[in-house]
Amino acid sequence: MITFGCPDRTGIVARISSFLAEAGGWIVEAAYHTDLETGWFFTRQEVRADSLPFDVTELRARFAGVARSLGAESDWSVHDTSERRRVVILVSREGHCLYDLLGRVASGELDVDVRAVIGNHASLGDITEAHGIPFHHVPFAPGEKAAAFARVRELVDEHEPHAVVLARFMQILPPELCEAWAGRALNIHHSFLPSFIGARPYHQAHTRGVKLVGATCHYVTADLDAGPIIEQDVIRVGHADSVADMVRKGRDIEKVTLARGLRWHLENRVLVHGNRTVVF
Amino acid sequence: MITFGCPDRTGIVARISSFLAEAGGWIVEAAYHTDLETGWFFTRQEVRADSLPFDVTELRARFAGVARSLGAESDWSVHDTSERRRVVILVSREGHCLYDLLGRVASGELDVDVRAVIGNHASLGDITEAHGIPFHHVPFAPGEKAAAFARVRELVDEHEPHAVVLARFMQILPPELCEAWAGRALNIHHSFLPSFIGARPYHQAHTRGVKLVGATCHYVTADLDAGPIIEQDVIRVGHADSVADMVRKGRDIEKVTLARGLRWHLENRVLVHGNRTVVF
Amino acid sequence: MITFGCPDRTGIVARISSFLAEAGGWIVEAAYHTDLETGWFFTRQEVRADSLPFDVTELRARFAGVARSLGAESDWSVHDTSERRRVVILVSREGHCLYDLLGRVASGELDVDVRAVIGNHASLGDITEAHGIPFHHVPFAPGEKAAAFARVRELVDEHEPHAVVLARFMQILPPELCEAWAGRALNIHHSFLPSFIGARPYHQAHTRGVKLVGATCHYVTADLDAGPIIEQDVIRVGHADSVADMVRKGRDIEKVTLARGLRWHLENRVLVHGNRTVVF
Amino acid sequence: MITFGCPDRTGIVARISSFLAEAGGWIVEAAYHTDLETGWFFTRQEVRADSLPFDVTELRARFAGVARSLGAESDWSVHDTSERRRVVILVSREGHCLYDLLGRVASGELDVDVRAVIGNHASLGDITEAHGIPFHHVPFAPGEKAAAFARVRELVDEHEPHAVVLARFMQILPPELCEAWAGRALNIHHSFLPSFIGARPYHQAHTRGVKLVGATCHYVTADLDAGPIIEQDVIRVGHADSVADMVRKGRDIEKVTLARGLRWHLENRVLVHGNRTVVF
Repeated sequence: MITFGCPDRTGIVARISSFLAEAGGWIVEAAYHTDLETGWFFTRQEVRADSLPFDVTELRARFAGVARSLGAESDWSVHDTSERRRVVILVSREGHCLYDLLGRVASGELDVDVRAVIGNHASLGDITEAHGIPFHHVPFAPGEKAAAFARVRELVDEHEPHAVVLARFMQILPPELCEAWAGRALNIHHSFLPSFIGARPYHQAHTRGVKLVGATCHYVTADLDAGPIIEQDVIRVGHADSVADMVRKGRDIEKVTLARGLRWHLENRVLVHGNRTVVF
Repeated sequence: MITFGCPDRTGIVARISSFLAEAGGWIVEAAYHTDLETGWFFTRQEVRADSLPFDVTELRARFAGVARSLGAESDWSVHDTSERRRVVILVSREGHCLYDLLGRVASGELDVDVRAVIGNHASLGDITEAHGIPFHHVPFAPGEKAAAFARVRELVDEHEPHAVVLARFMQILPPELCEAWAGRALNIHHSFLPSFIGARPYHQAHTRGVKLVGATCHYVTADLDAGPIIEQDVIRVGHADSVADMVRKGRDIEKVTLARGLRWHLENRVLVHGNRTVVF
Repeated sequence: MITFGCPDRTGIVARISSFLAEAGGWIVEAAYHTDLETGWFFTRQEVRADSLPFDVTELRARFAGVARSLGAESDWSVHDTSERRRVVILVSREGHCLYDLLGRVASGELDVDVRAVIGNHASLGDITEAHGIPFHHVPFAPGEKAAAFARVRELVDEHEPHAVVLARFMQILPPELCEAWAGRALNIHHSFLPSFIGARPYHQAHTRGVKLVGATCHYVTADLDAGPIIEQDVIRVGHADSVADMVRKGRDIEKVTLARGLRWHLENRVLVHGNRTVVF
Repeated sequence: MITFGCPDRTGIVARISSFLAEAGGWIVEAAYHTDLETGWFFTRQEVRADSLPFDVTELRARFAGVARSLGAESDWSVHDTSERRRVVILVSREGHCLYDLLGRVASGELDVDVRAVIGNHASLGDITEAHGIPFHHVPFAPGEKAAAFARVRELVDEHEPHAVVLARFMQILPPELCEAWAGRALNIHHSFLPSFIGARPYHQAHTRGVKLVGATCHYVTADLDAGPIIEQDVIRVGHADSVADMVRKGRDIEKVTLARGLRWHLENRVLVHGNRTVVF
């Protein structure tokens, strides 16, 4: 599969589609978008591998020429979708997102390879291991956060994951990890960003008296809760809902919002441009 | 109709409902809520006037005793729903909310008396007058805002309206008007507050790359866009939506959110407590 | 907790609330509704047990007099919320609803006692037992359905469950089981009823070209998919969604719709009246 | 703008985009879809007219060759978007959809030419004429329906409209009009089709006790309420909502659903394939 971005001009689609047609490529799904403000063109082309007379490495090499001719030096990728996506999940105590993801994996809906789950608490170890997935407990004792994060990094990086999922992991990633996992670390924030950044968003929401609460799946950047948004959703609340009710209702939005964002990310449907995303 | 708030304790419902039952009052609709955090009790009782052996003035006098015995000095009202609600609408150039309200009034859905529409531009005069409603054009020339607001106040206050509706009125009310119309001035803000307070919220939303845009109907207070929220709603947007598309989609949410908020306000369904609302 | 229905007349609220107030009952949550078409009154009163000077049996005995005086012979109940709710879940092969419920139970969000899970396939046995819950595999071989249902009934009835949850159980309950479990058997149907009754609703939805798919949680009656509706929800689909995509998207609605319906049922929030429900 | 459908095969996109690129065409927006079940390919290409060295007639002539070479005999169109869309609206007594459309036209949001409004009642004449649009009252007296429809047809057809909008027009079009206006007549049905076909859908919805009510914008065919669906939406209702409340809440969904459907139709975003639609 090809994802591609370059400055917009006439003939880009013709150039790319002719390249694929000449190679006999059968396009399963294609999407295009031009951002009029920045004059940037985006596309995603899903091609059946068996329709091409060469392998993915050769496709990458040949497509490089097309990309160069269109002025896209680096803003493109050729992904091998036959390679199973590797995922590492970071959790704390709240298990609803982890449960939801494990259920999707177990049923085959989300056909990925969850290599490990890492928790700063041990409480979600049993359910993880019941799925045959290794669980690592890395405590975050006061004053030992740096060491803990170093350990987490080690445990994550050995798998070279396509996605590092912060599934209600309540620790703020240090800048070097944001950097190392840029474009691969997904967080679910339990508010409709940019409302209620930071801690205890449901408490903030209750105090403000909002009539809907939300959840936001976004890429993690060094700026807290300010990374590119992949997906958001909301659910209605009312005056009769206590903070605990909001927390409970919000969970149902958090887990589906994270699952949607993760699926799109792993299917290479999300193209980041500045602080915005194109989701094909 | 009675709306009532007091510190929670046992026996409030019994006291109020016994009072009404003894008078033969037929309760059409009743709602109760206890806010556990503040320990405050709220109720709204809609009673058929013709089921009572006395008029609304007498009901008010008698109920005062009940209220006093429950520790509610001032936090209650008896409303005469036979009195038609008077409304004044403030507009600027954008007409979708005005159109929507006028359509509801014309069809009888919203059975209120729109006494006047006041615009800082003249462009919505024709449609207003086509409904037989007086339109006042009050220009807001630079340096003459104070005089303009004084004129607006005069035009509004002569009607003693139950609601002053800022239907995309693009001027910020001065503190003295916020005070004068406290609990009666409703604004529709074109974002999901507290996100994107202030000017050009759709531009802010586009820049942030959110996946939903919203609208908020709230009471106007001296704190910009920070008054008690009555109602909110959202609509989905995506990467293909320009700011203009967001503006267009957002309008459909703004107008229904404002209409719902206004209806509830005029039916005395909205009880304000601190900066939050109970909407029965 | 008391749920109560009777023909509407003046003084019902006064009668009930005075009874509770005289006993010193602290009302945690109260809701009232009058159905104007049928002239029927409904209420639900949640009272703190420790605020009453007698136990639930005595409350029931005393309240019987109140109920009789209001003309409610049988349409009321006093529920002891300190008694943990017993639940039996019936499943087939699709696990998303079961996963979701088990996750809620494991996290304490749904504080119920899942006594058993019964499957006509064995595939969901492992995840059930990983939660320490007994799993019974009851195959439904052709020609042996009656025997299979007899076995299911036996396995269910020994627990006297407050709820029998058909969590995507793909067998149609025979009339005698509908009867035996009337008001306790909840089904999740994977369409927005009354659209697409019966088999393969997502295929039906795809053929019809709808733009939203839905899910319906309802009480099971002898009339297929026609029982009283407790909760419904929908999710947007489009022309690019295959039946498989609709199935996948629909699951996220099915599981939350079932979970909400089950919670409300177990909290005695659902009062059935004819084929409609009041959900307090 | 080009809309196009043909049996799927490799190279279609390359063929079309190369044709446009060679002519220097600047593609403003492009969308593609392959329906895997029927093996049918769809595209919509919006090209800036001033980027082409020839006019729309010549584009149509030249594109015919491309279409033929791809096996699309008739399933394509070249639309001149500089031609203002002509619309005729049919109404009865309920004005919310008409109001909404007129408001969108007046504000410039919907830049179309409403040539006439035709009502079987006279009540919406004033608001129509206040917008400078001719209103025709065509009574549908018992026994004179055929003559009335003949008159309606005459009044509609003289404008050769791009869309005939049944904006809560309560008469069922006779088959010959469905035929004559095939693909151009849009109806808004006040239910979530296929639920509650025919008369009084809100009454049907209330009787069934649904928890959401909906609206459906669809092309009119001779089969009542069974034409291809363009857009649908829903709004939540509850036990406290009477039929009148459902009617009121439903209106807010009807009007925006119709407006969205009409906009997409007029922008040639809707491609009909069998009884389903592709909405680009």
